[in-house]
Amino acid sequence: MTTDALVNHAEQVFRDYRKIRSADRALFLRAIATNIENLGDSLIQTVHTETNLPPGRLEGERGRTCNQLRMFASLLEEGSWVEAIIETAMPDRVPVPRPDLRRMLVPVGPVVVFGACNFPLAFSTAGGDTASALASGCPVIFKGHPAQPRTSLMVASAISAAAEESAMPAGVFQHVDGGIEEGQALVKHPKIKAVAFTGSYAGGMAIFKTAMSRPEPIPVFAEMGSVNPIFILPDKMSTDYKRLAQTIAQSVLQGVGQFCTSPGLVFVPHHENTNDFIEVMKTSFLESPEEKMLHQQISVGYMDSLGAVLSEKGVQTLVHRQVEVPFGPPALGLTTIEHWVKNPLLQQEVFGPFTLLVEYKSVTQLHDALFRLHGQLTCSIHASREELLSDSDLVHLAQGKCGRILFDGVPTGVEVGHAMTHGGPFPSTTDSRSTSVGTAAIKRFVRPVTYQSAPQEILPDVLRNENPSHIVRWVNGEYTRDAI
Amino acid sequence: MTTDALVNHAEQVFRDYRKIRSADRALFLRAIATNIENLGDSLIQTVHTETNLPPGRLEGERGRTCNQLRMFASLLEEGSWVEAIIETAMPDRVPVPRPDLRRMLVPVGPVVVFGACNFPLAFSTAGGDTASALASGCPVIFKGHPAQPRTSLMVASAISAAAEESAMPAGVFQHVDGGIEEGQALVKHPKIKAVAFTGSYAGGMAIFKTAMSRPEPIPVFAEMGSVNPIFILPDKMSTDYKRLAQTIAQSVLQGVGQFCTSPGLVFVPHHENTNDFIEVMKTSFLESPEEKMLHQQISVGYMDSLGAVLSEKGVQTLVHRQVEVPFGPPALGLTTIEHWVKNPLLQQEVFGPFTLLVEYKSVTQLHDALFRLHGQLTCSIHASREELLSDSDLVHLAQGKCGRILFDGVPTGVEVGHAMTHGGPFPSTTDSRSTSVGTAAIKRFVRPVTYQSAPQEILPDVLRNENPSHIVRWVNGEYTRDAI
Repeated sequence: MTTDALVNHAEQVFRDYRKIRSADRALFLRAIATNIENLGDSLIQTVHTETNLPPGRLEGERGRTCNQLRMFASLLEEGSWVEAIIETAMPDRVPVPRPDLRRMLVPVGPVVVFGACNFPLAFSTAGGDTASALASGCPVIFKGHPAQPRTSLMVASAISAAAEESAMPAGVFQHVDGGIEEGQALVKHPKIKAVAFTGSYAGGMAIFKTAMSRPEPIPVFAEMGSVNPIFILPDKMSTDYKRLAQTIAQSVLQGVGQFCTSPGLVFVPHHENTNDFIEVMKTSFLESPEEKMLHQQISVGYMDSLGAVLSEKGVQTLVHRQVEVPFGPPALGLTTIEHWVKNPLLQQEVFGPFTLLVEYKSVTQLHDALFRLHGQLTCSIHASREELLSDSDLVHLAQGKCGRILFDGVPTGVEVGHAMTHGGPFPSTTDSRSTSVGTAAIKRFVRPVTYQSAPQEILPDVLRNENPSHIVRWVNGEYTRDAI
Repeated sequence: MTTDALVNHAEQVFRDYRKIRSADRALFLRAIATNIENLGDSLIQTVHTETNLPPGRLEGERGRTCNQLRMFASLLEEGSWVEAIIETAMPDRVPVPRPDLRRMLVPVGPVVVFGACNFPLAFSTAGGDTASALASGCPVIFKGHPAQPRTSLMVASAISAAAEESAMPAGVFQHVDGGIEEGQALVKHPKIKAVAFTGSYAGGMAIFKTAMSRPEPIPVFAEMGSVNPIFILPDKMSTDYKRLAQTIAQSVLQGVGQFCTSPGLVFVPHHENTNDFIEVMKTSFLESPEEKMLHQQISVGYMDSLGAVLSEKGVQTLVHRQVEVPFGPPALGLTTIEHWVKNPLLQQEVFGPFTLLVEYKSVTQLHDALFRLHGQLTCSIHASREELLSDSDLVHLAQGKCGRILFDGVPTGVEVGHAMTHGGPFPSTTDSRSTSVGTAAIKRFVRPVTYQSAPQEILPDVLRNENPSHIVRWVNGEYTRDAI
C-alpha cells in the first residue's frame, strides 16, 4: 500500500474505532498480550538473533510489554482516565443562565509510532506507544525499526490477529517497513494527527521539524534520551562510597548501557574517599565482560561519540578498551566541574556503557552546574537528610531540569505504573508535558471536548447522568462516582 | 529594560515564585481582582475610549475578569488540580521491588502572554492567560496590545500593586509595550518556557513558527479563532425557524461580531421555510444599528475580507452596507453547499458581524461538508432528538472537528468554569489539547514530575503521606482525600 492508501485507511478506521466502547478496546489489548505470549520461545529467539540481547532480559521485557498492555486494559475498564467534568445547567442564574456543560477526553485520530531498537518489545511494535494510542481510541500506523524486521513482523501479526479476534476494525493497526523517507512521508500526511518516537536526538528532531512545518502542525512526542546525572553529596561519600560506586557502575553497565535512563554523568565531591570511590568504579568497569551492542551502527556510534568526549580538554580517560564492532566496551572518564561548566559537549549523550565523573568542590559549583544542565529524563541525588534539608535549592534546581527526581537510587529500571514520568524538559523530549511510560502516556493522544446542552441519549456513556460505568467525575465541583 | 534583562529577571523570580504555597498564590490572585475593581469607573472610561465598546459590556467583562481570577484562586485553595498520583513502595515485590513514586504537576517557567484586543480585560493584561499562568506558579511577561496602551498599563499597575501587597517576588508580572518585533524577541529568548496568545491566524502562526525554530522549541497556545459553524437540520426549520433566525442573527451581530466564537457559517436545509428564515435574518441584519469596531485596522480588515468572500463565485450578497471606518456594518451572504465544498476560502474567518448561509439538500452533503471542515472552536447543531438519534455520524463528525459541540444553542457567550473547552483542532488553535477559558487553562503551563523514593520532608506538601490540604489523590489505584 502507498502511504496515502495506508493513512486514508487509518482515517476511515478511526471513524469506527473511536465509537468502540472502552471495555471492548480493553479486550483487544488483552488479546494482543495473550497472542504475544503465545508466540513463545520462537519470539525470544528471533529477537535475540536480531538484537544480541540475552534471552533472560528479553523474557523480562516480554513480561513488561504484556503487563503494559494489560495495565492499559485495566485503565480502560476502570474508565476514569477520560477526566469527565460536568457542570449541570443553572437556568435561573443571573445575569445569565448557566448551560449544561460536560467535558471529556477524546482520541485525536490516526497516530504514527516509530519503534525504538533498544527495547525491541517494550518500546516497539506492541510497546507503550502503540498500547497507549490504541487504548485512547486512535488507530496506529507503526513504522518498524529496520534493525529488527522479523521481530516487528511477528509482533505485528499478533496484534492483527488480536484485532480480528476481538472484532476491531481491520487495519486499526498497520505495520510499515522502510527507512527515514517512508517515516517522514507518514509524518507529513495531513490525516496523521500525532507522532510518537523513541530514539536519537537527530532522529527525533528530524521528525519534529517535519511535523511543525506541515500546513497543520501536529504534536510529536519524541523521547530522545538524556545523560541522567547523578549527584553525590559529601555525606554519602563519607558513609557509603563503596556500595554507591558498585550500584552506579552496575546501572551504567547494565544492558551494555543501551537505556535512555543510563546515567552518563556522575557529580562527585572533592572528598577523602573520592579516589577510593573511583577505584571501585574502575574495577567494576575493567572486570565487566565485553558484550555485543544491538547492531553495528550503534557500536560505531558509541565508539565515535566516546572518542570525542574523551578527547575533550580536561577529560581524563580512566577506562577505555579498543574492541571490534559490534562490541560495546565499558568506558569511564573524569573531569573537573570547572571544565564541565564551560563545555556543553560534556553533557551530550554517549549511548553505551560510559559515564563521566565530574569532581566538584562546593555546593555553589553544584548549583551552577544544575543551572547549566540541559533538560533530562532523570536526576538522581545521593545525600543525607541533613544535606537535603539544609539546601532546598538543590532539589528545586534538579526538579526544574527533569521529569523524574530520584533519591538514593539509580535511574535505570523504569517502573511502569500510574505515577511514572518518563519524559522531561527539552532536549530529553520534545514535549515535557508528556510521559511515554505508565498509564499517563494515554494522555498524549487525546484532547478535550465539551458537550453543551446535549440531550442525554446523544452523550457518551461516561457523561450521562446515570454514570453507568461508575467512573470518578468532577461534578459541580465535587469528585464523585455517583449518578446525577 | 532590555528583553534580556526582563527575561533574566523573570527566570530569577521563578526560582522563588514556584516555591510559594498555592494558598498564598491564591491571595495574590484575589488581590489582583480587588485592585481591578478598585480602579472603578476610570478603568471603564479608559477602556471605552480605547475600544469603542459600550460601558455596559465593559462592566460585564470586568466582572468576568475578576471572577476568573477568583476562580483560579479557589482552584489553588482546593488544591487537587496538581493531579497527585502516588504509588507507595512494595519492597517485597518479585522479581523486583517497587520504589515509592509520587507524581504531580509543576510550573514550567517564565511565560509570555500576548493580549487580545477584542476582550480588553478578560483576554488581556489580567485575563485568563495571565491568571492561569500566575496560578500555575509561572512568572508572566505580558506584551500589551498596541491599541489599548492605557488600559493595559492601568491593569498592569493593579497587578503589580497586588504582588507587593501579597508579598510576591517583585517582577512576578512584568508589562512590556511594543509591536511585533518586541513580541518575537521575547518568544525567542531561551529562558521563556511557554507562550499564550489570542488573536489572528497570521499573528498566532508567526509566533508559533518562531517558537518552533528555537534551539529549544517551546509550547505555544495560540487561540486563533474560527468560523464556528451552525448546522440546522430540517425538523428545526419546520418547527422553529423564526426564533432560530433571530437567535442566530443576535449571536452574529453581538459585539459587532468581534468574538472568536461568532458564528460565521450557517448550514440551512433546502426547506419550505428556508426563504422565510432568510428573510427574518435579513431583517435583523438590516435593522441592526451601525456600530464602531475596536479600531481602524479591524474595521479595514473586516471590509477587506468581507468583500473578498462576497465576491467569490456562487456567493450571493443579501446584506452589505458600505460605511466609513471604524464602523462594522452587518453583512449576510448566501451560497450553496456545492460551491462551499469546492472553495476553502469560504471557510476563512471574517472577523466582524458577517455570516454566510450555506444551503444543503441532503444529509450526505452535510456529512461531506463536515468532513471538509477545518478545525473549529465550536460546532452548533440544531436538530430534533429523532434526527440526532437517526444520524449518530453527524455528532461524531462535528465532535471530531471542534473543542465544544453545542445543541440548540449559539456559540457566543463562553461559560467560564471547570467543564469549558475553549480550544479545538488546528487552525482554531495551535494545541488542541488545551483550553484558554476555564480552570483547565492552568494545565497549559505545567508538566509532570515524579519523585522517586523521596524522604517525606523533601516532598511538596501535596505528595506527603499526611495530605495536609486534603486534596484528591490517586493513591495505589484509589481516588481518595485520605492520608496514607
